[in-house]
Amino acid sequence: MMMSKPWIFKRQELVRFGHCDPAGIVFYPRYFEMLNALVEDWFTQGLGIDYAQLLGPRRVGMPSVRLSADFKRVSRMGDLLTQRIAINKLGRSSLGLTLQFDGTNNDEDGCRVAFEQVLVCTSLDTHKAQPFPPDLRAALERVTGAAT
Amino acid sequence: MMMSKPWIFKRQELVRFGHCDPAGIVFYPRYFEMLNALVEDWFTQGLGIDYAQLLGPRRVGMPSVRLSADFKRVSRMGDLLTQRIAINKLGRSSLGLTLQFDGTNNDEDGCRVAFEQVLVCTSLDTHKAQPFPPDLRAALERVTGAAT
Amino acid sequence: MMMSKPWIFKRQELVRFGHCDPAGIVFYPRYFEMLNALVEDWFTQGLGIDYAQLLGPRRVGMPSVRLSADFKRVSRMGDLLTQRIAINKLGRSSLGLTLQFDGTNNDEDGCRVAFEQVLVCTSLDTHKAQPFPPDLRAALERVTGAAT
Amino acid sequence: MMMSKPWIFKRQELVRFGHCDPAGIVFYPRYFEMLNALVEDWFTQGLGIDYAQLLGPRRVGMPSVRLSADFKRVSRMGDLLTQRIAINKLGRSSLGLTLQFDGTNNDEDGCRVAFEQVLVCTSLDTHKAQPFPPDLRAALERVTGAAT
Repeated sequence: MMMSKPWIFKRQELVRFGHCDPAGIVFYPRYFEMLNALVEDWFTQGLGIDYAQLLGPRRVGMPSVRLSADFKRVSRMGDLLTQRIAINKLGRSSLGLTLQFDGTNNDEDGCRVAFEQVLVCTSLDTHKAQPFPPDLRAALERVTGAAT
Repeated sequence: MMMSKPWIFKRQELVRFGHCDPAGIVFYPRYFEMLNALVEDWFTQGLGIDYAQLLGPRRVGMPSVRLSADFKRVSRMGDLLTQRIAINKLGRSSLGLTLQFDGTNNDEDGCRVAFEQVLVCTSLDTHKAQPFPPDLRAALERVTGAAT
Repeated sequence: MMMSKPWIFKRQELVRFGHCDPAGIVFYPRYFEMLNALVEDWFTQGLGIDYAQLLGPRRVGMPSVRLSADFKRVSRMGDLLTQRIAINKLGRSSLGLTLQFDGTNNDEDGCRVAFEQVLVCTSLDTHKAQPFPPDLRAALERVTGAAT
Repeated sequence: MMMSKPWIFKRQELVRFGHCDPAGIVFYPRYFEMLNALVEDWFTQGLGIDYAQLLGPRRVGMPSVRLSADFKRVSRMGDLLTQRIAINKLGRSSLGLTLQFDGTNNDEDGCRVAFEQVLVCTSLDTHKAQPFPPDLRAALERVTGAAT
């Protein structure tokens, strides 16, 4: 059951004109722009680790090494998506996430897209993996502890 | 071995300034824009089915139902990517593809991103699945026949 | 004085990773995506005319016929932009706007980009100009009246 | 007459699915992505100054300080745009360009969008204006000389 997923962060995003294609539905690369924005907001607001500081002055990268998406229902301009994150796996330098975008247009609505994403912590100078910095590690342990 | 994949279409694309992020590497949603452009060119140039006609006047959609990506090496502005398509599975209304973006900067370069994508043929009026139109089906059978 | 402009709508937007280029600053096409989102929110929230309804079921378009931008200061990832709209000219089917994005990082900050935009009301079936629909016209007159 | 403009660079670009909005026409921020790609190709192919090298290792920026666009005709998915550049003004660190995207669908077609753009040469370390580097200056003088 998706309902039992221990979601640790949630936000909402409006499907805009610029997200949609000539078919009138979200063009899938735009879903991935939303996905990155969701992760940004989770870091800054949820974990208390400023994402712009992390990737800017601190030179810590969080690129995806693996990403999959199941597109289950179409989304149209004007839809409000509820976007959620759960942690699947926390490694020394990698982080496995489940992310889900749900519509709430009516009773029969539900999951629009379900994502699995593996992020890895890197140095932006070398683009090589490195352990999470201590403040980020502590924040991640706090939320995964809270979720068990 | 990736080499033995029966690639049926190939094109090249330059990694541009606008594809890259503050880390100086391709922002992953841009890879999916490239992916869609690759599929468009394959339809029009490889299969001889004009993609703009198909999705425009003919009102036939080809949305993704499943998509996964393995990001293996970073790509930088100015890199020339070789993009290839192979067919994994041809159904009545669905199409399973393997797609790969390779760099060729030097001898140690190789696959940058490997994708698996399942497309489904839909009506753009109902967004429901429908069998491939006959000309598209014939073109797909021709290339899969050629590849076996 | 910019201060004396009769701004009729305001919102804020965070500069995200995906807005920025390898130079670490906003890639200018992303400013225009923000601009369109600002106009969308103004219609829906400020004017009370649902933008998604207008361009979707109602088939009324609001394309730009003229657009100019003065880029005055760079914007970086993590900056919070204050975005404002003022009306310059209201015609039978056209609308002249001034739009401005300001940063508020410190005392010496100020306007990042100033835009002038002319939108025209069209039918999405013919892409030809048509007078504003009555509810939109009434809403526009209300705010321009309020602003004088 | 636009015909008498001394165009110094030309390329073609296909209007893709991902460029178009629910109205079935190019979403204007995508025109600016095309515009940047046009300038990139002009630098690399026309001027012989590798754009990725310039903005990457050489840390020379070319941001826009002013940009205007006149949208004259809509562009649809599948249209082939001819994109051209002319130089209006060459300063010590700034460059004024006219750029035009034309359609060629039929005899009555013509200019889709006309742009005026002022680029300025900057240091990507300070984001302050600086004179063009000697090789770029020489290349620009060569083409403007050729055009007079």
